[in-house]
Amino acid sequence: MEKTIYFEEDAVVILDQTKLPGQVVFEKIETIDQAAEAIKKLKVRGAPLIGVAAAFALAMAVKKYSGPEQVLEANFRDWKNTLASTRPTAVNLFWALERMERVYRENRKKPLAELGNTLKAEAEAMYQEDIEANKALGDFGQELLKPGSTVLTICNAGALATCGHGTALGVIRSGAQRGKIDRVYACETRPLLQGARLTVWELMQDKIPVTLITDNMAGYTMKTKKIDAVIAGADCIAANGDTANKIGTSTLAVLADYYDIPFYIAAPMSTINTELPSGDSIPIEERDPDEVRQIRGSFVTVPQVEVFSPAFDVTSNELIDAIITEKGVFRPPYAF
Amino acid sequence: MEKTIYFEEDAVVILDQTKLPGQVVFEKIETIDQAAEAIKKLKVRGAPLIGVAAAFALAMAVKKYSGPEQVLEANFRDWKNTLASTRPTAVNLFWALERMERVYRENRKKPLAELGNTLKAEAEAMYQEDIEANKALGDFGQELLKPGSTVLTICNAGALATCGHGTALGVIRSGAQRGKIDRVYACETRPLLQGARLTVWELMQDKIPVTLITDNMAGYTMKTKKIDAVIAGADCIAANGDTANKIGTSTLAVLADYYDIPFYIAAPMSTINTELPSGDSIPIEERDPDEVRQIRGSFVTVPQVEVFSPAFDVTSNELIDAIITEKGVFRPPYAF
Repeated sequence: MEKTIYFEEDAVVILDQTKLPGQVVFEKIETIDQAAEAIKKLKVRGAPLIGVAAAFALAMAVKKYSGPEQVLEANFRDWKNTLASTRPTAVNLFWALERMERVYRENRKKPLAELGNTLKAEAEAMYQEDIEANKALGDFGQELLKPGSTVLTICNAGALATCGHGTALGVIRSGAQRGKIDRVYACETRPLLQGARLTVWELMQDKIPVTLITDNMAGYTMKTKKIDAVIAGADCIAANGDTANKIGTSTLAVLADYYDIPFYIAAPMSTINTELPSGDSIPIEERDPDEVRQIRGSFVTVPQVEVFSPAFDVTSNELIDAIITEKGVFRPPYAF
Repeated sequence: MEKTIYFEEDAVVILDQTKLPGQVVFEKIETIDQAAEAIKKLKVRGAPLIGVAAAFALAMAVKKYSGPEQVLEANFRDWKNTLASTRPTAVNLFWALERMERVYRENRKKPLAELGNTLKAEAEAMYQEDIEANKALGDFGQELLKPGSTVLTICNAGALATCGHGTALGVIRSGAQRGKIDRVYACETRPLLQGARLTVWELMQDKIPVTLITDNMAGYTMKTKKIDAVIAGADCIAANGDTANKIGTSTLAVLADYYDIPFYIAAPMSTINTELPSGDSIPIEERDPDEVRQIRGSFVTVPQVEVFSPAFDVTSNELIDAIITEKGVFRPPYAF
């Protein structure tokens, strides 16, 4: 699997995920605005990766800064705000920005070059920690799977959504390494088809058997195929365990409940925001209607039609059988 | 709304629904093979319309027949088998073919020209009866809706799926005529996007407010918008009320049950097959994997990925609050 993000001199290089699986294209990000645009357009996506990408971008901007030292702090605040305004739901983004600001404040008296290097080291630490967290949560999560498991998932909560290994796909990958995974059903995940484009590609690269279905086939698949677990990632987990994730996740949870299949969320602790008492306080991003009206740039409907396009939904904690993190597996009633 | 099918001299003319909404193109069908191909490719689709289209095709073939009279019956049987083999789930298809065969048998002693005209008249009667059935079921169904209703639907069970007025959209249309419909949420209905392409187009032509969502947004829409009813069509209803309809329908029924929203099926009596005791005996068509792998002819995933592509699913009778027909509204326990 390719690296999803890395530093190259004073630039951040990202794998442009909008072009997968047809083309593997890396893009050089040299300004905060380019970073914000890449996040908004989902070139970089997946809550954990968005957080680390924002941290990389802030470190890059400080390292490259050549203006007057006395306005660096105001600039830093602007950069942080620009990055924070890209995607309202992903908790990891705000968590990463706060962590970088804390390191900035602790080191702002240092010479500029040293400050830049400190921030870069912090971003790189976050990158490493993310991989380690995914491997740890994968290890914990795979214990929930029995040998011969067939798992259904949505969107891409994989190596591509993180710095490596993945969250939901991290659990599946750790299970596959122990020979426990028979097959994965991947929901294509309209509007932007992250399941069809990214999860299928990632699993086929790892030679984990995968079957693609459209999102409306999930219920019939649960009813007629032997699905042993549904595993999804998360963009924000509230204090009570209510979880925001890709639109359609809550539908899978309702279906899994109806068909008596365990439903699991896999996410690093940085996705949990205990300041939000419940899912009702999670802001839900709505996206450009043309993402629904068009597929790959061409209209599939009447161009003037009104569209409702929430990017996420909230799954109630009572539908979640376990939340898998790098600190272990939480069970209801959730307390983190 | 354009006519979906009509005779033109010795040909059957159909509206090619695969080209909607971009282009309104009519296609002349002059052979049974062309008719079968049009049904397989979904140029003509919707259970009631498929039935009538098959009847039109049989009448056309007999009217045009110029071979030896003694092998007409063998030919008729071949034509019927060819048409019957197109779509295994749609009951109306078999119902229409049986009805045409009965009329054929009753009139086979007549001169060929007269026999052809009798069959044409029968097909045209089925066409008229379908429109009348839809209007009648629309009238019955709209009584279930209160003023200011917001309704969610899937696929296209509209004028385009029938000879006019529609089944699920017939209920909505009859409701709209009485000022009861605030808005319709249309699920796009992957793989072939009949919701985005056909339902949106049909409702916009009738100036009924419509909002398009992707299929995985239905749950969140039920949770956050005031949805008063879910109404779907049917391709086959078993004796116990279990109903096969477009893939994703059973998911909407599970969601409606969870969110405490009434779930209705609207279909003519010809969609009911009382010889099937339950949904378990309904054959489910699986379609070409490339319909999932591709959208409008271009790949959206790894071209080699395995796909599961059922065209229909079965909704259990216990999830269906009413089945709306031209004979009235049936309630559980279902007995037809």
